[in-house]
Amino acid sequence: MRIALVGATGYGGSEALRLLRARTDIELVWVGSDRLAGRKVGDELPQFGTSHIGELRFSPLAELRLMQDIDIVLLALPHGEARIWAPQLLARGLRVIDFSGDYRLPDAMYAQWYGKELPEDRVAQSAVYGLPELYREEIRTASLVANPGCYATCAELALLPLVEAGLVDDSRLVIDAKSGVSGAGKAPSSGTHFVEVQESVRAYKVGAHQHTPEIEQVLADGRRRRRGQRANEGVGEEITTREVRVMLTTQLLPIKRGIYVTAYASLGTTMSGQELQEVYRERYDREPFVQVLQPGVIPEIRYTVGTNLCQIGVHVDQRTQTALVMATIDNLGKGAAGQALQNLNLMMGLPEDTGLRIEPWV
Amino acid sequence: MRIALVGATGYGGSEALRLLRARTDIELVWVGSDRLAGRKVGDELPQFGTSHIGELRFSPLAELRLMQDIDIVLLALPHGEARIWAPQLLARGLRVIDFSGDYRLPDAMYAQWYGKELPEDRVAQSAVYGLPELYREEIRTASLVANPGCYATCAELALLPLVEAGLVDDSRLVIDAKSGVSGAGKAPSSGTHFVEVQESVRAYKVGAHQHTPEIEQVLADGRRRRRGQRANEGVGEEITTREVRVMLTTQLLPIKRGIYVTAYASLGTTMSGQELQEVYRERYDREPFVQVLQPGVIPEIRYTVGTNLCQIGVHVDQRTQTALVMATIDNLGKGAAGQALQNLNLMMGLPEDTGLRIEPWV
Amino acid sequence: MRIALVGATGYGGSEALRLLRARTDIELVWVGSDRLAGRKVGDELPQFGTSHIGELRFSPLAELRLMQDIDIVLLALPHGEARIWAPQLLARGLRVIDFSGDYRLPDAMYAQWYGKELPEDRVAQSAVYGLPELYREEIRTASLVANPGCYATCAELALLPLVEAGLVDDSRLVIDAKSGVSGAGKAPSSGTHFVEVQESVRAYKVGAHQHTPEIEQVLADGRRRRRGQRANEGVGEEITTREVRVMLTTQLLPIKRGIYVTAYASLGTTMSGQELQEVYRERYDREPFVQVLQPGVIPEIRYTVGTNLCQIGVHVDQRTQTALVMATIDNLGKGAAGQALQNLNLMMGLPEDTGLRIEPWV
Amino acid sequence: MRIALVGATGYGGSEALRLLRARTDIELVWVGSDRLAGRKVGDELPQFGTSHIGELRFSPLAELRLMQDIDIVLLALPHGEARIWAPQLLARGLRVIDFSGDYRLPDAMYAQWYGKELPEDRVAQSAVYGLPELYREEIRTASLVANPGCYATCAELALLPLVEAGLVDDSRLVIDAKSGVSGAGKAPSSGTHFVEVQESVRAYKVGAHQHTPEIEQVLADGRRRRRGQRANEGVGEEITTREVRVMLTTQLLPIKRGIYVTAYASLGTTMSGQELQEVYRERYDREPFVQVLQPGVIPEIRYTVGTNLCQIGVHVDQRTQTALVMATIDNLGKGAAGQALQNLNLMMGLPEDTGLRIEPWV
Repeated sequence: MRIALVGATGYGGSEALRLLRARTDIELVWVGSDRLAGRKVGDELPQFGTSHIGELRFSPLAELRLMQDIDIVLLALPHGEARIWAPQLLARGLRVIDFSGDYRLPDAMYAQWYGKELPEDRVAQSAVYGLPELYREEIRTASLVANPGCYATCAELALLPLVEAGLVDDSRLVIDAKSGVSGAGKAPSSGTHFVEVQESVRAYKVGAHQHTPEIEQVLADGRRRRRGQRANEGVGEEITTREVRVMLTTQLLPIKRGIYVTAYASLGTTMSGQELQEVYRERYDREPFVQVLQPGVIPEIRYTVGTNLCQIGVHVDQRTQTALVMATIDNLGKGAAGQALQNLNLMMGLPEDTGLRIEPWV
Repeated sequence: MRIALVGATGYGGSEALRLLRARTDIELVWVGSDRLAGRKVGDELPQFGTSHIGELRFSPLAELRLMQDIDIVLLALPHGEARIWAPQLLARGLRVIDFSGDYRLPDAMYAQWYGKELPEDRVAQSAVYGLPELYREEIRTASLVANPGCYATCAELALLPLVEAGLVDDSRLVIDAKSGVSGAGKAPSSGTHFVEVQESVRAYKVGAHQHTPEIEQVLADGRRRRRGQRANEGVGEEITTREVRVMLTTQLLPIKRGIYVTAYASLGTTMSGQELQEVYRERYDREPFVQVLQPGVIPEIRYTVGTNLCQIGVHVDQRTQTALVMATIDNLGKGAAGQALQNLNLMMGLPEDTGLRIEPWV
Repeated sequence: MRIALVGATGYGGSEALRLLRARTDIELVWVGSDRLAGRKVGDELPQFGTSHIGELRFSPLAELRLMQDIDIVLLALPHGEARIWAPQLLARGLRVIDFSGDYRLPDAMYAQWYGKELPEDRVAQSAVYGLPELYREEIRTASLVANPGCYATCAELALLPLVEAGLVDDSRLVIDAKSGVSGAGKAPSSGTHFVEVQESVRAYKVGAHQHTPEIEQVLADGRRRRRGQRANEGVGEEITTREVRVMLTTQLLPIKRGIYVTAYASLGTTMSGQELQEVYRERYDREPFVQVLQPGVIPEIRYTVGTNLCQIGVHVDQRTQTALVMATIDNLGKGAAGQALQNLNLMMGLPEDTGLRIEPWV
Repeated sequence: MRIALVGATGYGGSEALRLLRARTDIELVWVGSDRLAGRKVGDELPQFGTSHIGELRFSPLAELRLMQDIDIVLLALPHGEARIWAPQLLARGLRVIDFSGDYRLPDAMYAQWYGKELPEDRVAQSAVYGLPELYREEIRTASLVANPGCYATCAELALLPLVEAGLVDDSRLVIDAKSGVSGAGKAPSSGTHFVEVQESVRAYKVGAHQHTPEIEQVLADGRRRRRGQRANEGVGEEITTREVRVMLTTQLLPIKRGIYVTAYASLGTTMSGQELQEVYRERYDREPFVQVLQPGVIPEIRYTVGTNLCQIGVHVDQRTQTALVMATIDNLGKGAAGQALQNLNLMMGLPEDTGLRIEPWV
């Protein structure tokens, strides 16, 4: 299998390199960067100084125009740039996994939340949202996969079982999310300066984070699918026309990697923590990368860092009739590169966990 | 003014020493510790190696039995121990500020949430909860002040204006709280080991944190007082019998000091962020240590560390009709020693901010 | 006393603001910044949001040209810029403390180590190096004080007693120095990005750090003075023509503030740790901000952060006949703003420790 | 191949588990712990919750008395305990790799530096010091390998080429070493408490660290071997009777993992940095895990964390005729478990880098 990677020097792209390095079934044949064209990967990214990947040289992006004999192209570019390259690649029969937000939302919604217009793009309609836990079958045959956002992945996995099962008021879901600094990208800024981040925490983009509509869309679709499925099974069910609405608060943590989501939802019915856990366990029973923790075991970011895991703990607060879901991922793992490689495995018909059974960096 | 401090070696007690060191109007005449009796403060706490406080010697607690000519005794002891000493001190006419949870809750509630019984104690009835923003007048004349818990202080200041104004569903308040490691105390444990804490975050005591009833009690009392006040003003108001209920999630951050609270409440009515901010600004207008930030300015832990400040930012999420309140304090400042000295100032009739106008450790 | 501060938004300048804030004997009347001219200090530096200093507005630097009725101007500007302003200020009779390297070295040496030429400047001859422990008397009457570099301060205080006493081979002094990230300045860069710094350490400017000649010059001058003094006392002494030479290695630590120096010197004679400590204790006996620790007590960075202290511990390794000196300072305290205010106190005839008796941020 | 591991819950043992987990050629059949006997590995070490290793159950150490059909036993026990078990295992024909200091030093020297006596032990004579870069051939056939200390490994690899080549005054080598907190072990203590470590650095065991004689012994042996080799080659050489002497300063860093060594040595002859680098490059040319960096590239801890690499950068300071060697390792990788598995590979006749080609945790 032959793979190309565009944008290898950002944190998401570098993590993809790390995961690809360990694969013997995949050949990374091309790594793209205009800024670094001609330089060796190992010179720019010293962590690959001792591996064959470090010997690769960056190629200019213009070469994408002629690219052939490549199974899948991973695009790890800034928002807006995948719309330039993906249509060309698809037109020549290549398949694409895009790390950016370019193909995750309807264009109008993108414009609203990202604050800029995307060029119109016919391939956008064909994009499949790359969350295997909801769209596994579609991903297998997709030409274009929109790899989910990091916060979005964690929040969606945290809330899907509750929303699908119709157990909560899904018009007022609260998602309190915290992320390590690598989520803010590699470009230096005042907001990522060590002295400004260390020994502190702050919220940002309050009420305006672009993953908000992404989460709502996926949760709503999960609800719709589940109800369709039940209808097919002949289970009558009250139809809701209520929109799924989440309030997402994103906060910056003084750590390098990892996301911690605590999601709160008002329960419509009385249920025990045990019962809630059963809902989650059943939902994720066969998922290789979603781990529902034993009752009383609480997720910690460090047990997912470096992996493709999402760890989930649930709790019912009887006093306020509130379900609490705690979920952790590595923002560069299940939140970016790990999930991309999970999608790649699906697209290539490989066992889904190939190259992704990795211990965390404890 | 003559002061005694018991339990100076814990993080709360040490911070009290630091704040007292800068005071010229207060004489710290006695520092108690059985374990260190006879040793110099500066030998145990090198940060005082160059100040007069470092020259003081620890005295055995038994001396408390004879203590006289002391205006106020600060008790910074483990939970359960203030009940041993406070009654004796009060009986001899001394006034006490207690850092622990011993006098914050009714005994039955304490037993339920702390998991152990407190000895019965007649002085408990007279204890005043040391949150000046609600109980300023009572504190001035109190003999025994129960200094609030760190999470409790931050959550109460975050939610009091909303609850008092009757703007939200106060039977389902969500408090997502994160704290630095000093909140876990100085005793070494697996949970405070650097390697186990660094580069991670985890929740703990989920649904069971002992500050939960403390917060509920204070919010309910704030609501009651406000309604009594309105009734006196002739403003008719619907009486609610609903209990105030909070769901508190506490999480450990890889920082030394500081608390970040994000509190979520369902708004009963439509209102703008501007309007909500006005509610807060009005409520805390004359408070020397509660700072309601300008719209768009978001609290950061680091701007309160080392100070007695509580910084608050508010936001209304129109899509979910949810009020978000972000509040930060230093858990050892406004969450412990700073607030204790604020209470001490009130008790002694001093300007409330004496010795507490300090810049944060940025 | 009226003071002006130019360059308040860098880390050194902000720390000067923090220390000035607490002074009642000094009036900070002018704060300069071209970029922020017209804006309030508290808007740019939220840590001053609740103090009178936050109410000050930045003024354009052009106003320096007309400045009068100012006792001392603190220049906290990037290297090279003090040479523009200091001559003008001195010409009008104002006194200047410069935080930069502009007046610390002979011009030729500056050009060699800083890699650029400074404009010639007649006032440079009159500059006094602002290390009170060596140049106290000269500082009192100086018009222009060159405030020492952070690494330089720590290394000089660590080694002066050894070199002055002629106890070591001072042609091969090894200085292994580590600094927090604030030493690298506030401008965002790849090298100060949280993700690139956290959980790592690296050396930089190996063998080429610009504080190298500054340290050598001061140590050599200390040696010369001490020998002159002994000669005056009639103590005959072998004259050495050997140059003082240091090998300085600077390393970046994942902390915000603080410097840790371990200095190694070959002892010419056999001596005990006790004897070495006696040399240091005697040398720094009357120094308000140099603390020679008890035998067996080892310096920790955290006990100097936020203060103007330099803490020193000494050790003799008998097996290699090597003297080890460990020294810590806050790079923004004794390494910049603290020392500047110590110099200011001296220049104004105030008690040297005015406003500088502060507890560390433990 | 069948392996047993004793002491899997410490940081070194856990890292060995992590490295073993990825091996398909090794079967870990037994994991020992008296305290946890009967419990599952995954319950104690959640990082193995999703792997087959997590399903293993701890067995009591008494079972070691009967152990058979095991190729190699890894002992990761506190100092002093290997002396209890290793002789019994060797007597039954099993081979042992010991992580502790029990077999690294002559008994008298151990007693002097570790401050306690070890029981006499006949197998001690047969122990081979597990530094493949010096003792590769002996390790292949060894029954008992003494895995080197973490500081020792880093310092030895940093200095061996200089000492072997006779380029420096090896009676006064200075080793300034810094380590992450995992080097202090998993047992909670005041010295590993997050609040006491974060935002600080301090030296410890000054002049008394137990790795001092370990380093001296290995450097001296390297010198002896090299000279023997030259003698055999007919190269006459002045014989030195001087002892190798190092002054080792160990310092605690606020990071989880990693060692940074800066070693300083007085050069006997004039040489350029280029020439020095050539010495290192030649010495480590065929070493799979020692990477001599290009001139101007400086080691960073993060590029070795999670790996078995030692990265080395060299510099000659012409002004002081001093060689500076900077070396980094992961104290749990090349400093413990990684090196143990490198030794295991050698003992089993496997390619030396089997299972050890891993990217760092950047």
